Parts: sequence; structure tokens; C-alpha cells
Amino acid sequence: MAGSSSEEKAVAAVQNKKVVLRRHVTGFPTEDDMEITVDTTEIRVPAGQTAVLLKNLYLSCDPWMRGRMTKHEDGASVPATDFAIGEAMVNYGVGKVIDSTHPEFTGGDLVWGMSGWEEYTLITQPESLHKINHADLPLSYYTGVLGMPGLTAYAGFTQVGRPKKGDFVFVSAASGAVGQLVGQLAKIAGCYVVGSAGSDEKVGLLKTKFGYDDAFNYKSETDLGAALKRRLPDGVDIYFDNVGGATLDAALLHMRDGGRVAVCGMISQYNLEERDGLRNLYCVIPKAIRVEGFNVGRFFHLYERFEEEMAGYIKDGKVAVVEDVVEGIESAPAALIGLFSGKNVGKQVVAIARA
Amino acid sequence: MAGSSSEEKAVAAVQNKKVVLRRHVTGFPTEDDMEITVDTTEIRVPAGQTAVLLKNLYLSCDPWMRGRMTKHEDGASVPATDFAIGEAMVNYGVGKVIDSTHPEFTGGDLVWGMSGWEEYTLITQPESLHKINHADLPLSYYTGVLGMPGLTAYAGFTQVGRPKKGDFVFVSAASGAVGQLVGQLAKIAGCYVVGSAGSDEKVGLLKTKFGYDDAFNYKSETDLGAALKRRLPDGVDIYFDNVGGATLDAALLHMRDGGRVAVCGMISQYNLEERDGLRNLYCVIPKAIRVEGFNVGRFFHLYERFEEEMAGYIKDGKVAVVEDVVEGIESAPAALIGLFSGKNVGKQVVAIARA
Repeated sequence: MAGSSSEEKAVAAVQNKKVVLRRHVTGFPTEDDMEITVDTTEIRVPAGQTAVLLKNLYLSCDPWMRGRMTKHEDGASVPATDFAIGEAMVNYGVGKVIDSTHPEFTGGDLVWGMSGWEEYTLITQPESLHKINHADLPLSYYTGVLGMPGLTAYAGFTQVGRPKKGDFVFVSAASGAVGQLVGQLAKIAGCYVVGSAGSDEKVGLLKTKFGYDDAFNYKSETDLGAALKRRLPDGVDIYFDNVGGATLDAALLHMRDGGRVAVCGMISQYNLEERDGLRNLYCVIPKAIRVEGFNVGRFFHLYERFEEEMAGYIKDGKVAVVEDVVEGIESAPAALIGLFSGKNVGKQVVAIARA
Repeated sequence: MAGSSSEEKAVAAVQNKKVVLRRHVTGFPTEDDMEITVDTTEIRVPAGQTAVLLKNLYLSCDPWMRGRMTKHEDGASVPATDFAIGEAMVNYGVGKVIDSTHPEFTGGDLVWGMSGWEEYTLITQPESLHKINHADLPLSYYTGVLGMPGLTAYAGFTQVGRPKKGDFVFVSAASGAVGQLVGQLAKIAGCYVVGSAGSDEKVGLLKTKFGYDDAFNYKSETDLGAALKRRLPDGVDIYFDNVGGATLDAALLHMRDGGRVAVCGMISQYNLEERDGLRNLYCVIPKAIRVEGFNVGRFFHLYERFEEEMAGYIKDGKVAVVEDVVEGIESAPAALIGLFSGKNVGKQVVAIARA
């Protein structure tokens, strides 16, 4: 981050490390599909542009990025464009405004929103950024509990799942960025909630930290249907699905009349060249089940209400947060890849600068 | 139907032919799984019972009966109990009240509701019967357009599909009892509607009789996705699914943002010992699709409104009806089996008496 040596310029230019995609991916991604490159960036908004120059503080690693690493001929299966080869990858993050020509932002503002996987990013549509209203909480929370995953959990559970007091709720990938919050929101709503996760350590967290009534390690179960039946003998009113595949198929068989499957993600399927076939969708007919997919993009109108409500829960000790923070942009590729084998414990964050 | 020869009785006893299930079925059912038996029935309500004795006029053949022909150990997959071996099968039908000890019914009343596959049935819960308010229309319509399939089409399309003017609608098994009505309701709602069916004759009916904007024979198409794309290049807002399987999987890929799949039936799957795997359900996430199963049992509170509305459409010539009527209870097993190979053209009815 040393300034450039050209002394005739009033504006400092700095080295800007980036994580770029080397090739489009099929199947399971590896660290080698990305590389760290460095270029030089002037740390001001170029003359004539209305934009904001951000210093990125925290990058967020989220499963949905996997879709953007593949080349889609028809663009049908992802909610955003494919990443471009050789350019910085893109995702939600937390940053500090270094320079702004936009009337709503000034230097020093703390914001979160879509930014680059790099140290400095020029944001040409600053309207998409959110100012951080609770800087007294860890700023990294705006990559998770107070950011996109938090809003995903909140909107998906309340608007798609539509919980009622006493509902039986099942959550997969339950210790992840979204799952850990769904469980806690379910308890706040007066539900009984069971989670699945991929290690005994995570199962322990679900019960001791996130208030899940019961939990199981799906990797230790030979029969997911039996595992569900044992823990939810009366069936499931809301299944909050983060994984798809065999877990979704088992849950479909175990839904109650009028049950709702809020389909948030299918991380078990993202790296498969041929997806698993679901055989139990017929259950939606006799039990009048609603299976509804959603993406958080439709729910940003709820963000302000959500931010206040969730910040309140955190400050009141009603919602606990577990983050898995790695240091330095060089750590970002491994952190992202780790999501797909469940290496992360809680929300995966990359800290690249503290202020 | 000659009376019995015992002359000492004041009450006539008659022969009562029945269609009974000989064995529970796995895989594709055959006529041989059923047989016609005859017993003798007194044509009055037994003393001390509050009940109605019905003379059955029209039996309805409906795909959902297939589920009840299988023995379910856990009862999980059907909305009603399995048929009992050696007893008359059960389904919706039209009948005339011969005798009644229930205050709401008297001899001569025309009704529709759940009855036996036999000539005479004692209805011990007459509250489940509906009086026929439009006896000026063909009574057989109360097995179809004005009965359970009609309410299924109406409730499924309006309440689950939630059409908006200009929506692109796709209907499978589109000339069947339900499908032929969904297409016509879609036109009334101002939608563009495409149907699929299993013969060129049926495709012809869709376009000439039922007002479908376009239609195709799924058996002549090697690529269902391409067939859909050709006819609905901008995608599908509502898919009304009667068949499941490969057609559902193709439609999922072709849904528009915010699309709705109203899952009414999956006739392609009912006779398979292992159901087809669906690989495209992941599409519900980026496009925020709602896949919602339903069964008509939840919508009988809408029946009176529906009956008036639909009878009006028929009388105004806005809804056309095609029935496939076979004569005599002996024809019922073959008519039912024919549903599963698509032999029927339109609503399959068995006429066993005219009055």
C-alpha cells in the first residue's frame, strides 16, 4: 500500500491487490482457478465521474459466488452475470469511502454493498451502497448478520417461510451465515427448530450457541429421513433449505400438511456436473406443500427495518454471531473454496484492512 | 335391476353390481386388478340410520384413484385411505336420492359427491353430498366441469396460479378433465395459453375447441424444452402441472422470474415403481419461483361461487366441454385404466343409469 514514486502527481497512486478468476469453472472449484494480481490505482474518483472510491475492509465469502464462476451460455441459472476472466471478482463487502463525487457520500463514510475482491474499488453506482448505521458493532457483521446473509435469513424465514408460533422448523447448513440466524429467528418466533450441519463441532454450536432445540451431523446419518423423523416426529412445517439434494428430498417426505419449503440455496449441487434427481416432489400434492425459491435481491426494501431489528437483537443478546475470519486478501481464494467442503465455522469473512 | 323374488318384503331388494378391487397394485394397473361382482341391496335406508340411499347415475374416472389402489404402509402419499380389497371402489359421482332419513334430502333429489363404484350406495354421511343446482345442464357435467375436476381447475388456477392479464400459461394433459378448463379459464383471465397433450387429435381439440393459443403433442417432441421455447419464447408465468416428470423438469427451466408452478397431478409418475428424478428444481432460487401443490379438498368453501360462475360460462358459450362417456358399469375398469395411457379424449365418465 505504499504510494507510487511519481512525485509530479498530487494524487497518490497505490498498489491494489486483487483476486481475479483465471478461468471459468466446471465442477468443483480450486484455489488455482483464482490468482492474486496487483495493479496501481489512483485513490481518487477520476475527473468527471460521479462515483465513490472505496477502501475495502472486509470481503464476504458466499456460496452464491460459485454460480458466477461458471460460464453460462444462456445466463439462465444465476441472478447475476458471470465473472470476467482476469478481472477482480465481485461480492458484497464492507468498505470506507476514501473519495467521493457523489452528494450522498463523503470521505470516511462506512458502507457495505457490492464491491470488488481487491483493496480499492471505484463504485460507479454508489446508490447501491448502504451506509452503516451501527458502527458500534463489529463492522464485519455487515458481511453477515447485518448484511446480505442476515437479510436473506430474515426475509426468507419471515416472508417465504411465514412462521407461526409452535411451528416445527428444520434448517440445513444450520451453522452457516444464514442458517445460524434462521434458527435464532425461529426461536424468537416461538418455533421448535432442528438443524443439520456437517461436523460434530458445528452440531455443538447449534445447540449451545444458536439455541437450536436439536441438531444432527448429516455426515454421520445413513438415513436422513430417519434422522429427521427421530427429531421431528410430527413432521416439518417450515424447511429452510440451504443445501438441496438428498436433504431436500428427505425433507419433502417429512413435511406436514400445508408445509413450506423456503429454498435459499442448494450448496450440495453447485459443483456437480449432473445434479441429483429429486424423487419426492410429488409429496407437494397430497400435503399442499409450497416450495418457494427466493433471492435476497427482492427484499432490499425491508433492509432498514431489518437492520434496526437485528441490531437490537444482537445488542440485547438475543442473537449470537459466529464468524470465521481469515486475514489478508491472499487468504480469500482458500476461504471461498472452503465453503464448498464446509471448512468454515460460521460466517466466512476475509479481513483485508481494519480501517 | 330386477327386484328380488321374495314377496313377503315390503321393501324391494335389487341386484347391485359393483366394481371391486381384487388386489392392491404396484406399477401399472390392469383391468384384471378389478372385477365386477353382484350382491343384493335393499333400496331403502336401514331402520335407525340417518343416511341417504343413492342410485348412482354417472361414475367419474379420475387419475387420483390410482393412489388408492396401492397399499400404503404409512399412508403418507395419498389424501385418502387405500381401497379395501373386495369392496366397491369409491370416487366422486352423480346420483339420485332413492330414500332418505336425513332432513336435508328427499327422494328424487339429484346430488353429486363421493359414492361407490356400484349401482346403489348407502351414504352414511350425506352432509358430504352437493345438491345439483343446474339440472338443466347434462348431469354428467357434475363429474367434470361442474364437479371435482372443475373446482380443481378453478381453484388451482385462480388461487394457486394467481393469474394476471397477459401472463404466459402452460398446461400439461391439457385436454383432460382439468386441463381443458384451465386453458379456457386462462383465456377468460386474459392470458396467453399453450397446452401439451398426447395425440394430434387432442392437440387439434385444444386449438379448435378449448381456445388454446397454441399446443403440441409431447409424444412427437424429442426435446420438451425446445418445444416450450418455440411456443413460449418469453418463458412461462404459470405452469399448471398435471403430469410431473420430464415435462415438469423442462418447464422449471423455462419459467419466468416470479413464476408459479401449480402442481395438480403427476400422472406420468403414478405407475412407476421408481419415480423420475427432477434435476431442475434449483431454478426456483434465481427466478424466485413458487412450486405449490394443492388438492381440491381445501377449496370446497369456494364451491358455490364456482358452480354459479362455471354454469354461467357454459350457458354463455364461454366454456366448452368434451366428455368421453362409456356405457355401463362393466365398462368402468377399462375406462379407468385408459386414463393412464391417455386413451380418453376429455373427461372420462361412466354412465350407469340415466335417471
